Amino acid sequence: MGLIVQKYGGDALGDKGKGKSGGGDTSQLYGAQFIAEKFLHVAHVVKKTRDQGNNVVVVVSAMGDATNRLIAMAQSIMKNAPARELDMLMSTGEQQAIALVAIALESLGIPSRSFTGHQVGILTESLFGKARIRSIQTERLESTIAEGIVPVIAGFQGATADQEYTTLGRGGSDITAVALAAAIRADVCEFYKDVDGIYTTDPRVCPSAYKIDRISYDEMLELASLGAGVLQSRSVEFAKNYGVPLHVRSFLHDNVGTWVVPEEKEMEDVVVSGVAFNRGEAKITILGVPDTPGIAAKVFSRIGAKGIVVDMIIQNTAQEGHNDISFTVSRSDYDAAIAVAREVAKELKAREIIGDNTIAKVSAVGVGMRSHASVASRMFEALAANDINIQMISTSEIKVSCVISESDLDDAVRAIHRAFEDKRSTPTIDMG
Amino acid sequence: MGLIVQKYGGDALGDKGKGKSGGGDTSQLYGAQFIAEKFLHVAHVVKKTRDQGNNVVVVVSAMGDATNRLIAMAQSIMKNAPARELDMLMSTGEQQAIALVAIALESLGIPSRSFTGHQVGILTESLFGKARIRSIQTERLESTIAEGIVPVIAGFQGATADQEYTTLGRGGSDITAVALAAAIRADVCEFYKDVDGIYTTDPRVCPSAYKIDRISYDEMLELASLGAGVLQSRSVEFAKNYGVPLHVRSFLHDNVGTWVVPEEKEMEDVVVSGVAFNRGEAKITILGVPDTPGIAAKVFSRIGAKGIVVDMIIQNTAQEGHNDISFTVSRSDYDAAIAVAREVAKELKAREIIGDNTIAKVSAVGVGMRSHASVASRMFEALAANDINIQMISTSEIKVSCVISESDLDDAVRAIHRAFEDKRSTPTIDMG
Repeated sequence: MGLIVQKYGGDALGDKGKGKSGGGDTSQLYGAQFIAEKFLHVAHVVKKTRDQGNNVVVVVSAMGDATNRLIAMAQSIMKNAPARELDMLMSTGEQQAIALVAIALESLGIPSRSFTGHQVGILTESLFGKARIRSIQTERLESTIAEGIVPVIAGFQGATADQEYTTLGRGGSDITAVALAAAIRADVCEFYKDVDGIYTTDPRVCPSAYKIDRISYDEMLELASLGAGVLQSRSVEFAKNYGVPLHVRSFLHDNVGTWVVPEEKEMEDVVVSGVAFNRGEAKITILGVPDTPGIAAKVFSRIGAKGIVVDMIIQNTAQEGHNDISFTVSRSDYDAAIAVAREVAKELKAREIIGDNTIAKVSAVGVGMRSHASVASRMFEALAANDINIQMISTSEIKVSCVISESDLDDAVRAIHRAFEDKRSTPTIDMG
Repeated sequence: MGLIVQKYGGDALGDKGKGKSGGGDTSQLYGAQFIAEKFLHVAHVVKKTRDQGNNVVVVVSAMGDATNRLIAMAQSIMKNAPARELDMLMSTGEQQAIALVAIALESLGIPSRSFTGHQVGILTESLFGKARIRSIQTERLESTIAEGIVPVIAGFQGATADQEYTTLGRGGSDITAVALAAAIRADVCEFYKDVDGIYTTDPRVCPSAYKIDRISYDEMLELASLGAGVLQSRSVEFAKNYGVPLHVRSFLHDNVGTWVVPEEKEMEDVVVSGVAFNRGEAKITILGVPDTPGIAAKVFSRIGAKGIVVDMIIQNTAQEGHNDISFTVSRSDYDAAIAVAREVAKELKAREIIGDNTIAKVSAVGVGMRSHASVASRMFEALAANDINIQMISTSEIKVSCVISESDLDDAVRAIHRAFEDKRSTPTIDMG
């Protein structure tokens, strides 16, 4: 007998990536029967969990592409629509989904009630489009559970103290699920995905990749921020802060997926838990910058002012009194970033600007690095053995990242995965 | 300088009757450009009204067929979905529309803010699917107007004291508009329709029909309940009770439409304001019912128990100790009604049941009837002169209705319209 929060994403309720722009639901594309089956499937999974003696709270995203299509509708009227109105519009996507999930549950004879974020007491700050949750008033949710009714909660949304509807930004539905699980002290927050769990790396690149059974919050955070897209960093951070065990699993079958949990002693036996990578990066180097205080601040405040997020930064002294500064940005920001860099370089009387928008980043992540020496050097050796040139290096306590040429990426992922395969122990604990 | 509530229906925001079942918005059918134009058109009408020095409050329905399509989606999952969840689902239609109208207004530089029924303080009883408004807390609406911002309110919806979302049933958006106009003491509640106003009768049947400039609430109520579908009875009733002037007009041009107002002295000069008709009726006669107390109650309570609404009822003594009872129902209820009538007739030992599902009803409506004698007889004469047989007659203070064969209906409408044309004065007052 447990209390389980189950989160179903848009892919469980629709079919992401197949929608055309300009709409608010997927029914036109897939037909009523397709939609009914999707919702009934979710209801059956909930029923099974309930039949095993658990109380279930369901959190859902909007169906398939609904959110993107609502935004496209707004943009057809006004390119930069007010964020408040976009939130008003977008929050209907989840509201439709919760009603339909509740109806599907009722059709299986399971008493159910849907709630918007506002109704279930998710109070946020008043920053439209990316509000943060301030508090959750759980009375209504808890009394619904106590009545034996399955609450179906709209993810991604909340309301301010003034009853203004807000959305939580990218990954918002996951955050809702984790926040609710924390608030009602659920035993686990389950994420139903179209993948089996978290993999050691992308199996499409590296066929020997396999599903990770247990991973620590910190490792998951590193993997998430390094481009392994299954969970969003913010929801993992939230889970870590409140100690909510996560279980990432498939909505297509019953198998145990990946548990994301507080760090366990056995995890240190695994030197590298996962190999993450990101293709879409770009590098800019400013050569011959005068070595005076405040230079880096000047460069990066100007870039930040353009809304460009800088990832890695490396500075080293090239010759007496002059530095070279290299940094990486997302490839989509490359043109804007190099334009700013040119301006700044001129002002600073730097010698030259070099840019490369064909780079990629590959990273090895694992809490085992803390206790195992020379992880970095083994990674560098694996790359060298495959004639892969390392352009930049960045490390943290549980991560080593290398910038390489994008054309070397697939080989690099396979080489690093292979280099650490022998250092992994097969996890044996199973909480599922 | 006035305070004007403007209500835009689904036909102003989409295209009713062209949608396929099973969806939640119309974008797939019409494309983003079509939708953008519709919303921008509404915004331009609001802007024009505002530029003339008025404060405007906008009330909107869901786009086009959105509501029907959301219901179809729910039904594809469960035939009799819980009313609470249907309300949760349906209320997203209006919520999408208000956000898009507010965005369209902002795109014209008009500060605007959308509000759901709940946000704007529309408190209803907790009867899902057909809740009645209990009260409206106008503080938020009034402070928004005072700030110079155009509020865009979702019609058709409200919330209970427990924050449960409700819908107001058929014609609910019109009721929202009138209720808000009453609550904030607006000068007028304008209904933007795809017709020019209220016509003396349907111009498709009677080419000499013309637009009525002013009509009383009571006449409008009779016309609405008799099948002239432009306004719903409930919203006219509401307007009458609170003295809200209504203005039914076209969203396609600027012309003055029809004002629906408290009765004015001049209105009595017009004997018949309008000729309404309803094709889809059926008649059932129970012959030879024993003339004992409680018979009618028995017949109609049994029919009412099946959810069948009875329109006209006529009872007269056919022979000593026996009555004939005739009544009309909507044609769609004919089979169910005649089955009940057969059962009851058997129990009552009535002689015979006669049914006819090819009848229609034609009605003449006008407050002038109160002061002009022999309106009914002139109507009967007009029908007789055209060889049209009258099967049933029903009258009220300002209405005469005749049941006739459906095949005679068009001729009947034209004959009655012609008979009273000379008794109409051309209205001269213009408040537009």
